[in-house]
Amino acid sequence: MTAEIISVGTELLLGDILNTNARFLSRELAALGVSIYRQTTVGDNFERLVQAYGEAFSRADTVITSGGLGPTNDDLTKEAAAAYFGKKLVMNGEILLSIEKRFSGQSQKMPESNKKQAEVPEGAVVLENHNGTAPGLIITGDGKTAILLPGPPSEMEPMFTGQVAPYLQKRQGGALVSRTLKMCGIGESAMAEKVMDLTDGMANPTVAPYAGNFEARLRITAKAAGEEEAAGLITPVADEIYARLSEYIYGEGETELEEAVVGLLKQKRLTVAAAESCTGGMFTARLVNVPGASEVFKESFITYTNASKTARLGVKPETIGKYGAVSEETAAEMAKGAALAAGADVGVSITGIAGPSGGTDEKPAGLVYLGLYINGKTVCRETRTSGGRQRIRARAASQALEFLWRELKRM
Amino acid sequence: MTAEIISVGTELLLGDILNTNARFLSRELAALGVSIYRQTTVGDNFERLVQAYGEAFSRADTVITSGGLGPTNDDLTKEAAAAYFGKKLVMNGEILLSIEKRFSGQSQKMPESNKKQAEVPEGAVVLENHNGTAPGLIITGDGKTAILLPGPPSEMEPMFTGQVAPYLQKRQGGALVSRTLKMCGIGESAMAEKVMDLTDGMANPTVAPYAGNFEARLRITAKAAGEEEAAGLITPVADEIYARLSEYIYGEGETELEEAVVGLLKQKRLTVAAAESCTGGMFTARLVNVPGASEVFKESFITYTNASKTARLGVKPETIGKYGAVSEETAAEMAKGAALAAGADVGVSITGIAGPSGGTDEKPAGLVYLGLYINGKTVCRETRTSGGRQRIRARAASQALEFLWRELKRM
Repeated sequence: MTAEIISVGTELLLGDILNTNARFLSRELAALGVSIYRQTTVGDNFERLVQAYGEAFSRADTVITSGGLGPTNDDLTKEAAAAYFGKKLVMNGEILLSIEKRFSGQSQKMPESNKKQAEVPEGAVVLENHNGTAPGLIITGDGKTAILLPGPPSEMEPMFTGQVAPYLQKRQGGALVSRTLKMCGIGESAMAEKVMDLTDGMANPTVAPYAGNFEARLRITAKAAGEEEAAGLITPVADEIYARLSEYIYGEGETELEEAVVGLLKQKRLTVAAAESCTGGMFTARLVNVPGASEVFKESFITYTNASKTARLGVKPETIGKYGAVSEETAAEMAKGAALAAGADVGVSITGIAGPSGGTDEKPAGLVYLGLYINGKTVCRETRTSGGRQRIRARAASQALEFLWRELKRM
Repeated sequence: MTAEIISVGTELLLGDILNTNARFLSRELAALGVSIYRQTTVGDNFERLVQAYGEAFSRADTVITSGGLGPTNDDLTKEAAAAYFGKKLVMNGEILLSIEKRFSGQSQKMPESNKKQAEVPEGAVVLENHNGTAPGLIITGDGKTAILLPGPPSEMEPMFTGQVAPYLQKRQGGALVSRTLKMCGIGESAMAEKVMDLTDGMANPTVAPYAGNFEARLRITAKAAGEEEAAGLITPVADEIYARLSEYIYGEGETELEEAVVGLLKQKRLTVAAAESCTGGMFTARLVNVPGASEVFKESFITYTNASKTARLGVKPETIGKYGAVSEETAAEMAKGAALAAGADVGVSITGIAGPSGGTDEKPAGLVYLGLYINGKTVCRETRTSGGRQRIRARAASQALEFLWRELKRM
């Protein structure tokens, strides 16, 4: 199977929105073992859409579109696909009923224009939309398959995962299973170097490195007749990667670093508090991302001024005077002070120079000290980050999570 | 002039990275008055690149590529463009020297592979790269123009803004000027309704609505022989929009809402402190986004537990007992308590139910109370947001900024 992706929407051509759909579909198709050689973006224009279908099908047997399934006259993807396949549009009573129900459930009357969404090309397979009114469609003919998906990611992504991926997997034959190992405290290239023999040397399973958000990931993908067999092919490779990189691996799949941290705190029955300066709340906001964080998180102090560092955390004015607010000594007192003030078992602190101004030769923008009060002891870490104010702050929040995760694991 | 964008990179086809370049280029070209009918993404493959050039030039006179200008054998965009135009690649001594200098400045020796980056198609215009080693190129012939830009946004974006935009503007003739008015506290469609006569009825200047990040924007773009004349065409339209929507407009251009807030606080010589619960620091992190926020921001309290709301902010246990932690009454005491504890003039509070659990019929997930202590008085606001935990929290932080901005303006 070779596939192409067509993203439909004039707002994409104007740069009003970022095309996250093409990325999502490409990534999911790659995971299914489907090769993509081209992504195309066209506007909501009938002739150009039909032309794009023709070009894509001259190179690929499967074309997946997103967008242009709405109720307005601008939405023409279905009409263009029907024209390309030479199929008539017919009213589907079941879809019409479900759209009417959707509206009446919100005590609204269905606008006349939404009727258009219930028309489907003859013989098309209808994909249910649980998150909006536009159903998806699969149209086949002449050995070609067009898969039409709605544009909003909140509708498209679950429709793909729930209905299109199983359809394609069945067509591909066999099962494709993947596992993603997520790491912190190591860069993508350093990680890749340690598993180069695996990423370069293997065909099934494959091992692919990824980076993003100050983290690194390895995805292991195996193909086999059945899911269990595919998973079995992955296990020894995953075990080998754990053997080499376990000190960095905080979780798998959708797990986020903050979830791993909250999980460890729960497991060890510890509570945490934080004192943030340059990050201004970014670290705590990450912790609170986790539903149920309240079980382990007590409170945080965003002590931006020196006075508040002293009043809230008990940082000695002499410490700030002698070493500066951005120093290991201050970070240490902040971490301990946060834990004691909040009555928490663990205290985390972050103090640094986010820039662009405020830096010196000795203490440049990007210099951040992390403090951790844990098990009655205080440990600190100095980090340096290049880039702008927001990058420096976001990375400091990530590094503080990583620092906390590492020390909790060690306990 | 009609243009197309080709994004080059196998990592895009695999979905490893998000294509922000196509969006950036589309948006900038729209601002220059250049129509884009298609964006294409192809991999690092010589034949497919040449084919993509041919197809794009069959529809457009100008093709802009990003990516594939690096030093490795995978980087083939320049080679494909030269082949398409039938031009030879020749070594450019000046570029070679500047690449060598770049390496020696970091005390490194230039790898042999980087020599490739100094080769340019005969007669091409070279675009300097101040942020990397790959120069950009403009190749012309047969009334066609290919503009080749590097892939990393940190190199591509300044090269486009500094060198390509002026080149295209000159070719377009005349000047294109735009102004963007940024609004908060009003949705895109409500805003668009109030200026529908302007967005639909005018050709020069044009008025276009945008949405994003819980905000709405209007971009006014005018074309004229000179910049001053174009700006003059914009002024009366901008004035008319201000007359209709001034209560929502917090700034223009690159100004962010948090900058407008910090600006007003500075202007009125007021300091601020905050008490956050469900947002867990997101509001304060937005304030600290602004360089120099320390002039007006004192400290914040992330009081996630009821005990900390009482200990830090003096919220009465009876208030929480009677009305709940998520209530107008608690929000009011939190805001006042934050200001008094921090010795700040203004106090902001946020308390809500971020979900997914913790909601009830009476107080569902998405219910958030904002409090504001200002000028010795406390005002509160109730808001409801649909969607997931992170959306509810991010919107609450935005709404708190808007609430604060509105009350500061009113003073």
